[in-house]
Amino acid sequence: MMTEDFAELHRVLGAIRPVDPRDGAEARRRLDSLTKPIGSLGRLETIAAQIYSIYAGEIRLPLRRAIYVFAADHGVTAEGVSAYPSEVTAQMVQNFLNGGAAISVLARMHHSALTVVDVGVDAVLEDAPGLCRMKVRRGSRNIRREPAMTAQEMAAALNAGIRLAQGAAERGENLIAVGEMGIGNTTPASAITSLLVRQPVAAVTGRGAGLDADGRNRKLNVIRRSIKLHFGQELNPDALDVLRCVGGLEIAAITGFLLGAAACRIAVVCDGFIATAAAAIAHALCPPVCDFLFSGHCSEEPGHRFLLRRLGLAPILNLGMRLGEGTGAVLAMPLIESSVRLMLEMATFSSAGVSEATR
Amino acid sequence: MMTEDFAELHRVLGAIRPVDPRDGAEARRRLDSLTKPIGSLGRLETIAAQIYSIYAGEIRLPLRRAIYVFAADHGVTAEGVSAYPSEVTAQMVQNFLNGGAAISVLARMHHSALTVVDVGVDAVLEDAPGLCRMKVRRGSRNIRREPAMTAQEMAAALNAGIRLAQGAAERGENLIAVGEMGIGNTTPASAITSLLVRQPVAAVTGRGAGLDADGRNRKLNVIRRSIKLHFGQELNPDALDVLRCVGGLEIAAITGFLLGAAACRIAVVCDGFIATAAAAIAHALCPPVCDFLFSGHCSEEPGHRFLLRRLGLAPILNLGMRLGEGTGAVLAMPLIESSVRLMLEMATFSSAGVSEATR
Repeated sequence: MMTEDFAELHRVLGAIRPVDPRDGAEARRRLDSLTKPIGSLGRLETIAAQIYSIYAGEIRLPLRRAIYVFAADHGVTAEGVSAYPSEVTAQMVQNFLNGGAAISVLARMHHSALTVVDVGVDAVLEDAPGLCRMKVRRGSRNIRREPAMTAQEMAAALNAGIRLAQGAAERGENLIAVGEMGIGNTTPASAITSLLVRQPVAAVTGRGAGLDADGRNRKLNVIRRSIKLHFGQELNPDALDVLRCVGGLEIAAITGFLLGAAACRIAVVCDGFIATAAAAIAHALCPPVCDFLFSGHCSEEPGHRFLLRRLGLAPILNLGMRLGEGTGAVLAMPLIESSVRLMLEMATFSSAGVSEATR
Repeated sequence: MMTEDFAELHRVLGAIRPVDPRDGAEARRRLDSLTKPIGSLGRLETIAAQIYSIYAGEIRLPLRRAIYVFAADHGVTAEGVSAYPSEVTAQMVQNFLNGGAAISVLARMHHSALTVVDVGVDAVLEDAPGLCRMKVRRGSRNIRREPAMTAQEMAAALNAGIRLAQGAAERGENLIAVGEMGIGNTTPASAITSLLVRQPVAAVTGRGAGLDADGRNRKLNVIRRSIKLHFGQELNPDALDVLRCVGGLEIAAITGFLLGAAACRIAVVCDGFIATAAAAIAHALCPPVCDFLFSGHCSEEPGHRFLLRRLGLAPILNLGMRLGEGTGAVLAMPLIESSVRLMLEMATFSSAGVSEATR
């Protein structure tokens, strides 16, 4: 493992500082002065206070929203772990760029710039508006046979994510949704989850995009054998080793993005199971990264709840979704912006001349 | 009870037709052709199918959103059932109109016209943009001593709601949030809930805007005595009698609005506990009204869940809110519009050239 490949990662890890609890307290005082019963906006109040803390009270409105969808293929699809053929990754990337995918529709409706990041799609993609070409290699390796990535490849994917986060900060983006596309990627996400939260593979593995019961059993076996191959009976594997051996290129890039965003102090909304698996790697490397993270929604994939509990994140939406692409993250953005506007734009009891509680 | 007062109600009840299940089936076929795993948009798919059914496939985009907040006072506040003094109702109406209340902020952000309906505020309100003056009387009567309204007053409030729904239909509004403001109105809402879902008062009564334990006990006693006064041991009281005796003017107006909207076939998002109590009255009078209803969020008030179960409505959001004003309904609107745009704007597998599932 070449040290210089990881220089940027170490710099970013060293630059991340937790939010200042005094900012959260100031936000709560402000919220309690507004014309509403104390606490009556529920979860919106904690969301608003977190945004206030992230930006230390200096929130630029309207929030500048952006979506980053990281795409890559997975060699492990050779083991028959997905209901869809591998070429769907590249086809869906085209669909994103053509405006026909779910995330394209939501990006338009929610006025959010959409960037699709090719960090490892197993196809040659031409330049196109909205496509960011940062391919490390055409798909990760088959984790059932060998590590998903070399250390250098992993570093390249992490660095791609870090660079993108820095670009986002330079453009003033201050509410970012992160999602992914990669046929087969619930398999590495389940392997990561099982290793990081120490749960049996069966507890954290679902049907992905639509496997039947036989398919899920095959997937369970592939994940179990992959874990055994790389980690044997090891109980506390290093998070970067987990990422390298049973992860994937888009998962590594998201990990880098989340760490880079935390270093730049930008609020990020994490989508579902796969993006949250990346967040769990980032958290293992640097726990304060979660100060800058929101969970957009709770996925139907069973492993997601375990990851959220580990990260201390409560999902904003719970709509039974399991699509990925960042869809669950984008849908949470109007709620986050609503919470901020309520905090900053509502009248106080004294400014509005409204009587306070008497009992 | 004068028959002519209720002529409009009976006309509307006779005009409501359930949605056609063939439209729902058509929506589901369309959803299943889109470039996503079958069912992977979860709840958004059932929401989209319901909107498709309401408009029989002819959905005008962008959805024309509007918010109606019905305000009234309650004589029962004389019994000390609220943490806030009664004059806060009128003060908050001014706050709505001045743009400083939570619902004002959300209306601006979510591009929704806000109409505040004075159907029974205990104050003289001047004409103002956004205020609709339909006062029936200055506050309902104290339900602990006498019926909240006479039959004529109730009919006037119901008719006000019906007229507003007809106006909304004429303006082409096709996604409407309904909320309320009325100090003390969780007391009538709990009384209605206890009677309609046959649950003990304690199970369906909370702390409202912020009562302490003593205050809640006082409120429980007031509700129990009110129910006993008007209904004795009666097990199956008539829904209109429930509304008249233990309801309120804004609750009656919302009931009329929901029935009028169903007759005009408009989608309505119901806010929290009080608005849903009105929906329960409407449902008791005409069950198909629920075909046109969404529940925006689940309130912290314990009675809300019982009402939702009775109505067969699943709340879209669950954010621990208990503010009213329509806030929980407005926050659900972008999710509803997102579901519709996904259904209508996503590419299909064949149009996008994406391979379908192989297993």
